[in-house]
Amino acid sequence: MAIEDLLPIVHPTGLYQASRHLVDAGGKRLRPSMLLIAAEATGGEAAAMVPAAVSIELIHNFTLIHDDIMDNADIRRGRQSVHKIWGESGAILAGDTLYSKAFQILGMTPGQPGLILESMNILSKTCTAICEGQWLDLEFENRFSVSENEYMEMIEKKTGVLYGASACMGATLSGASDKEVKGLDEFGRLTGMGFQIHDDVLDLTAPQKVLGKRRGGDLVEGKKTLIMIHALDHGVEVGVFGKKDAARQEIEEALSVLEKSGSIDYARSRAANLVNRGKQALDALSDSPAKMLLLDLADYMIRRGY
Amino acid sequence: MAIEDLLPIVHPTGLYQASRHLVDAGGKRLRPSMLLIAAEATGGEAAAMVPAAVSIELIHNFTLIHDDIMDNADIRRGRQSVHKIWGESGAILAGDTLYSKAFQILGMTPGQPGLILESMNILSKTCTAICEGQWLDLEFENRFSVSENEYMEMIEKKTGVLYGASACMGATLSGASDKEVKGLDEFGRLTGMGFQIHDDVLDLTAPQKVLGKRRGGDLVEGKKTLIMIHALDHGVEVGVFGKKDAARQEIEEALSVLEKSGSIDYARSRAANLVNRGKQALDALSDSPAKMLLLDLADYMIRRGY
Repeated sequence: MAIEDLLPIVHPTGLYQASRHLVDAGGKRLRPSMLLIAAEATGGEAAAMVPAAVSIELIHNFTLIHDDIMDNADIRRGRQSVHKIWGESGAILAGDTLYSKAFQILGMTPGQPGLILESMNILSKTCTAICEGQWLDLEFENRFSVSENEYMEMIEKKTGVLYGASACMGATLSGASDKEVKGLDEFGRLTGMGFQIHDDVLDLTAPQKVLGKRRGGDLVEGKKTLIMIHALDHGVEVGVFGKKDAARQEIEEALSVLEKSGSIDYARSRAANLVNRGKQALDALSDSPAKMLLLDLADYMIRRGY
Repeated sequence: MAIEDLLPIVHPTGLYQASRHLVDAGGKRLRPSMLLIAAEATGGEAAAMVPAAVSIELIHNFTLIHDDIMDNADIRRGRQSVHKIWGESGAILAGDTLYSKAFQILGMTPGQPGLILESMNILSKTCTAICEGQWLDLEFENRFSVSENEYMEMIEKKTGVLYGASACMGATLSGASDKEVKGLDEFGRLTGMGFQIHDDVLDLTAPQKVLGKRRGGDLVEGKKTLIMIHALDHGVEVGVFGKKDAARQEIEEALSVLEKSGSIDYARSRAANLVNRGKQALDALSDSPAKMLLLDLADYMIRRGY
């Protein structure tokens, strides 16, 4: 990836160091991968799409930086979060910088102006939806109950749409047909929702070291994940829910309770279902090695250990 | 203006109410006016440019919302600031929403895709510069001294470039020549810098009621404005500088000291000089009623009482 070249550390260096902090920590980079493979799968040339792929990854990182401020999250990708090092003001600005840099870099993608403009329109619409999703997520914390439909809307906006944008921007920039673009949007959106539910499962079940952030963080923050919605609907008692200073032992106990109640398995099955529906949307594409890779990527999104 | 139509309050309504809070409070709307008049002055049709003008105003409002969080400012345009009502998380998200909405709405401007793409590239580059300017502004608060050149760079980025973008996007979307676009960029940037210096003067000299925010706010926050740089360079003692809990009477006294030392007059003359240079840049345009209006607008930027 050419992130270092496209986002150099220039004057004022503090701002760019803060902006690069999480980007340099790596992460799985599934979104840019999806964009590049989607481009290949629709007859485009992946190499030319690198700026677009970088722009998607920067948008993802911008949302992480701002979300970590709102969620009071101290650790991310095994590093201190941006606001812990540069303060809230620094983190707000680092996120804002990645936001505009993403659009600047997307504008560097070679190709027909009409196609690049079209992908900018996809990206801006997507960013608005992400804000709506994060707003709902915060609002849910203060509500007594959240329905499964409401949760699904929230993760579609918070996570699904950026995967959808990744896949369909790769296709759009390759000049793919409407049918292919629509199929890839659906593929990204649904598998992205599966990814988010799997993320909620990992937040509880993965070892902290592998996770790169506090284990059970969603639980103690009082996040209404699908697991918790199932538990609340079935009268399962989770004492540690919303208890920010919970001990490690208490989180272990909650995990065991949620395994027994079937709440975690329920989330797992919903994630698998979404991924399967997403894979079916790829029927819109003719067969190719890149399409096979997308199908594998979809499976990985809910099999990964972190 | 069609802001209400282009930014309707939809689900989740709280997010859009927070996003619209400052926008609805009005403000002078000089930036969108500059865009529309610049379009007219280069043969474009102002009515068609309304979405672009709205996008510029939304970017301006987004920066106000985020800056007010960083500067701990409680009042803006005579209203409580967004973070005071919706909390920091709400204000971060309201700003982020205006950011993406601005790009979405700019994308709705009718015209050739190549010209719209070009103005999106101008806007994204401008937003990056604004972040750099705000970073420098914050950094200066923690520094012992700031040179006049450093201050000029800061206000060029923080304020000048968005006026530059307003003027040159109006021209770009009208299909103006490179010479006209460049002249208007220069016009907006220089008059915008004059505007910012005048703003620093008003922060000290205008009645609080007219100002719509705390009088002397820059002073007590320890902002290194051109006035303070002049005062510090000339050994003028301003006891209230950086004293956040200063009384009204102390601010009055500081004002009198800074009038006597010539620091305020110095800032006034630098502002006038910048505006004159900006007006000269309009030599790139042929004469027209719209050009006359731009020249008047430039004068207004440093004559306004608030």
